[in-house]
Amino acid sequence: MADLAELLRGAVAGERLPLARLLTAIENDAPGIRELLPGLFAAGRGAHLVGITGPPGSGKSTLVNALAAEWRRRGRRVGVVAVDPSSPNTGGAIMGDRIRMMEHVADPDVFVRSMASRGELGGLAASTWIAAAALDAAGYDPVLVETVGAGQSEVEIAGLAETTVVVEMPEAGDEVQAIKAGLLEVADLVIVNKGDRPNADRAARQLRAMLSSAGGRVARQPPRVLVTTATTQEGVAAAADAIEAHRSAAREPLHARDRATHQLRRALGELAARRAASSSEWESTVEQVASRQVDPLTAAERLLR
Amino acid sequence: MADLAELLRGAVAGERLPLARLLTAIENDAPGIRELLPGLFAAGRGAHLVGITGPPGSGKSTLVNALAAEWRRRGRRVGVVAVDPSSPNTGGAIMGDRIRMMEHVADPDVFVRSMASRGELGGLAASTWIAAAALDAAGYDPVLVETVGAGQSEVEIAGLAETTVVVEMPEAGDEVQAIKAGLLEVADLVIVNKGDRPNADRAARQLRAMLSSAGGRVARQPPRVLVTTATTQEGVAAAADAIEAHRSAAREPLHARDRATHQLRRALGELAARRAASSSEWESTVEQVASRQVDPLTAAERLLR
Repeated sequence: MADLAELLRGAVAGERLPLARLLTAIENDAPGIRELLPGLFAAGRGAHLVGITGPPGSGKSTLVNALAAEWRRRGRRVGVVAVDPSSPNTGGAIMGDRIRMMEHVADPDVFVRSMASRGELGGLAASTWIAAAALDAAGYDPVLVETVGAGQSEVEIAGLAETTVVVEMPEAGDEVQAIKAGLLEVADLVIVNKGDRPNADRAARQLRAMLSSAGGRVARQPPRVLVTTATTQEGVAAAADAIEAHRSAAREPLHARDRATHQLRRALGELAARRAASSSEWESTVEQVASRQVDPLTAAERLLR
Repeated sequence: MADLAELLRGAVAGERLPLARLLTAIENDAPGIRELLPGLFAAGRGAHLVGITGPPGSGKSTLVNALAAEWRRRGRRVGVVAVDPSSPNTGGAIMGDRIRMMEHVADPDVFVRSMASRGELGGLAASTWIAAAALDAAGYDPVLVETVGAGQSEVEIAGLAETTVVVEMPEAGDEVQAIKAGLLEVADLVIVNKGDRPNADRAARQLRAMLSSAGGRVARQPPRVLVTTATTQEGVAAAADAIEAHRSAAREPLHARDRATHQLRRALGELAARRAASSSEWESTVEQVASRQVDPLTAAERLLR
């Protein structure tokens, strides 16, 4: 495997193969990645980092493709990191086929990379955002991070973006209400896709009502709700406009600091856990927690000392 | 507010009011809770900790009530911690009404407490499990922790239990498949509730196929899939049997260590983040991450030094 710094240089120079290899190294948390980070971030060009999440079936992937096409028309180079929720446990690869298809698209100004979702605490979020930083360093802007809003960490990953877009489908059965509620908490912009279905406008109205009654976070406007039909590009230009318009809001100090605090907390947690796991008391402490001789918080305090 | 140690003594002696106050203190992370933990855990009686999760609409709450009724018939005292996904942002209180109803039930041998879901990283998981430990110390066994499998941290909270039960509904549309997949990863036992619906048996067969083909984790059998109709108690006794049968499996060293490792990692992350936030370099580091002068991992490494 080539030297990581060399791969970074090639990626920054706009070469696809070094970038692809660098992303593989990031996904595998290859030795030397941690040391590469300062250089990787220093090479960043300030791309707009956009998280796109939503339940399966919302047409999220089609919308990402449609948005990428729209930005290409505007002369932008588009990077996509798609977090694939397949796992050895469930066997599925929901986005796999589409990704394989798009990875062979001839357009050199679109770069799509899928990342496999693993259970590692903090691990996936870290590699996803390092991959997004690599695409930024390679000159892609915007960089979209696509995750399935299907529980666990995927929603949170999207929530680390500067601008988080939640894609909803027109259907609004009881069983998806709470899932929506969870997703909406991270939304800067809500897009009701499949706008050609008869109940799309009603769903958008309901979502607007839900969001405006919510009140919620300090210094935060309720997110806008737009309707798109990704398959026909209907509303997609307006959605791209709305995402771009949020870029400056996302970079206001308050918003940027909130996000940085969140990222820093995650990184601290991951590092502290890794360090503790290599301490000589780790094994005996795990035993004591497992046998309920000590509670996890007291044990953690002891390990941190 | 009474002294926490005194509340604990009262709770251990079987008094409801001190227990209720102690749980409120735990929920609010009141001063002194951290110091109480060793005593709280030492008072534990080894209750079976059971996580119950599933999508909204699966009849999970009705099933928890039905299971509690079954265990009461068996002479057990049942504790329930229900994590309520209401939030200031979305305004909803999905389980609120039921909880309020059950909290006034006359039976002294069932104790139900709802905990509000907050965004704090690790915070909710920690208080949920401290509350479960308090119910254990107060002599309730089993202690059920009920969460809505609606994304974010709720699924993970249930996954911290000794035995995790995932409740599914018979419907199996595409849009819930990936949500199911995410939930199934934490399942030790899967219950298809609303078994009186015509497609319940088919759904159970599909889930069995999905689980057996998944292969998955080392040393782990595919979870059993049962069918219940909580409203009529149909299948509920068998479900209670299956949960009890899993108790010994959950206490095998390998399983107990896995869970302890997970809990310890979470606790370490939370503590490290809290400590860093009180350091004098915290503010300037957040600024540097916000302005992308430094990546979160490198910044976290610097803070931990």
